[in-house]
Amino acid sequence: MKSISLLGATGSIGIQTLDVIEAHPEHFVLTALSFGKNVDKGIEIIRKFKPALVAVSSKEDAVKLRTLFGNEVSFVYGQEGLIEVALHPSVDVVVNAVMGSVGLHPTLQAIAAGKQIALANKETLVTAGHLVMEAARAHNVAVLPVDSEHSAIFQCLNGERSEDVERLILTASGGSFREYTRPQLEGVTVEQALNHPNWSMGAKITIDSATMMNKGLEVIEAHWLFQMPYEKIDVVLHKESIIHSMVEYVDGSTIAHLGNPDMRVPIQYALTYPDRLHIPRAKKLNLWEYGQLHFAKMDYDRFTCLKLAYEAGKRGGTMTTVLNAANEAAVQLFLEGKISFLAIEAFIEKALETHDLIERPSLEEITKVDEETRRYVQSLLS
Amino acid sequence: MKSISLLGATGSIGIQTLDVIEAHPEHFVLTALSFGKNVDKGIEIIRKFKPALVAVSSKEDAVKLRTLFGNEVSFVYGQEGLIEVALHPSVDVVVNAVMGSVGLHPTLQAIAAGKQIALANKETLVTAGHLVMEAARAHNVAVLPVDSEHSAIFQCLNGERSEDVERLILTASGGSFREYTRPQLEGVTVEQALNHPNWSMGAKITIDSATMMNKGLEVIEAHWLFQMPYEKIDVVLHKESIIHSMVEYVDGSTIAHLGNPDMRVPIQYALTYPDRLHIPRAKKLNLWEYGQLHFAKMDYDRFTCLKLAYEAGKRGGTMTTVLNAANEAAVQLFLEGKISFLAIEAFIEKALETHDLIERPSLEEITKVDEETRRYVQSLLS
Repeated sequence: MKSISLLGATGSIGIQTLDVIEAHPEHFVLTALSFGKNVDKGIEIIRKFKPALVAVSSKEDAVKLRTLFGNEVSFVYGQEGLIEVALHPSVDVVVNAVMGSVGLHPTLQAIAAGKQIALANKETLVTAGHLVMEAARAHNVAVLPVDSEHSAIFQCLNGERSEDVERLILTASGGSFREYTRPQLEGVTVEQALNHPNWSMGAKITIDSATMMNKGLEVIEAHWLFQMPYEKIDVVLHKESIIHSMVEYVDGSTIAHLGNPDMRVPIQYALTYPDRLHIPRAKKLNLWEYGQLHFAKMDYDRFTCLKLAYEAGKRGGTMTTVLNAANEAAVQLFLEGKISFLAIEAFIEKALETHDLIERPSLEEITKVDEETRRYVQSLLS
Repeated sequence: MKSISLLGATGSIGIQTLDVIEAHPEHFVLTALSFGKNVDKGIEIIRKFKPALVAVSSKEDAVKLRTLFGNEVSFVYGQEGLIEVALHPSVDVVVNAVMGSVGLHPTLQAIAAGKQIALANKETLVTAGHLVMEAARAHNVAVLPVDSEHSAIFQCLNGERSEDVERLILTASGGSFREYTRPQLEGVTVEQALNHPNWSMGAKITIDSATMMNKGLEVIEAHWLFQMPYEKIDVVLHKESIIHSMVEYVDGSTIAHLGNPDMRVPIQYALTYPDRLHIPRAKKLNLWEYGQLHFAKMDYDRFTCLKLAYEAGKRGGTMTTVLNAANEAAVQLFLEGKISFLAIEAFIEKALETHDLIERPSLEEITKVDEETRRYVQSLLS
């Protein structure tokens, strides 16, 4: 029986993590969780899973929930509350499914406490990969990927020696605008960008998918998770998203992970690794039902954000912190209708150009650079 | 350093095994080998690799070669000679790359002597799978597949628990006549059948590929190698042969092995397992160079031989011995121009219908049934 702490229970990954936990009561128990502003959904989850500890964003919500649940559940709040949830003494695995860089501190503390990490939060590794992976090594803690692509690579590495790896190959669907040329991207709307062809996800990640920044963040994440130089990480366009990613070995063998799009698969694998469990109502993959799978070479001029991500990753240090913070800020401006789709990459590029690199930043420096970058991107508006 | 004995050195798999050995002199040494009638090629190989022991088919050839090589190399001959090569005391791995059922006895004896087996000879498992796998278990010997499809499955099983496997999925190119309807198959010639679209192989296996019997034999081989019931082995048509085969797991994950067609990959893997080695001049797989991969549902009415193979496999015992022997005899008759392409499956079906099943045959019973079946198929001609 694994005891789980779930950070970000009401988000898309959070809800699907709850599905996985619910499907296997003999294997998993939800001991602690956090959520943000979606209190109604949170109450529903607390009623169903009866966790011992819950963290919410605001003190007001914590007070309100204490009245509602009495002594059955402990309520905490804010960043400290989130850390308390990650550190609950009986918890074995912390699922980090929060949005943005708020997940970084709890993850580092959970690692220091020897908790296994199931990581769905890209920003944690993109902004502070060196700190997270160093801590994981120091405390002998496994950081298991929840992202579909990284879980695929992780599974393709099963039973293999890392020195036999020639190349990691991430697949990219191409997002909402995969058939668009750059001139056609000029006038696209928020509504068009939010219409992802394969996956139903949150707004931020759907836009990241359309700009290909999502793949760029994944490349950086793969670099850290699998300790692989950027020269050995490649991206191929594959519009059906059936091959989730691949690993090429020195003998020319390529091992791939395939499946119908279903986030429960990577979520569950992070919780059951190295074993597997049945998934209820999962659709079997019969390739003949697709008939064809398509592949195309990645065009780094067409998808500037991916090129920027590789460049930031290779330069290292705080460059990826800037990349991530600038992207979050610019995507927010796009979603608010304040800038155009192509301005997202332009704003990120400017932020990267003006930044003075810190080679091996501390957590404090990362936090500072993150905040400065967001302010800088805002300042570009005026 | 692994010491290798190679049965069938002058055949297609044999020659490529020599390529692999030659490429890695720091890892492999060829200690013993056998070949059949291709003495000129054999002499060339002996000069290059300087093995300690060589087996040939006939006493005459052994005598001739002794004169040629003096005391440098020992020469033996016939079935006994083949067994001597398989049992050479300093050998670690026996590569069984002979054609037909002649490889069965040496393989069983090598297993009993504790040698690791790299198996390229389908007939060994198809005719006597229960004996081979029982012996392997009893002597704690690994039987490693050399066939492209089985090596793929073997690699996709790396680091996984067998109880987590839901289905093995073999891919089939469809062979020379994949676009033909059954009426179109009526008048096809030997020359047309020998023209395989993806792989360059021997005549027998190319015809087996066109009839889909090759896939049928592979299904039976997979059943034995991976101890998987026939209900959990599936076949999908995939004309590019880029996905070599797949394993589906209980959580809906499918792990696949991909690569450009290159038999050195599975051969070398059987010799290096669980490690991998670089392969010189291997073509990197970039899926965008293919653009599309195609898949289609297997049509068991169109490919009768595959249906017969499943049926024979499920009935078990000597049925697969009959399937294999009848197929070898019928393909030979087709290659000699004595029967039509569609008569191959008709002859096999008749042989299976008239056979009285022996549930758990001994090696002697298998040999007897094999001979009887070949005679029976010959008798159908008159």
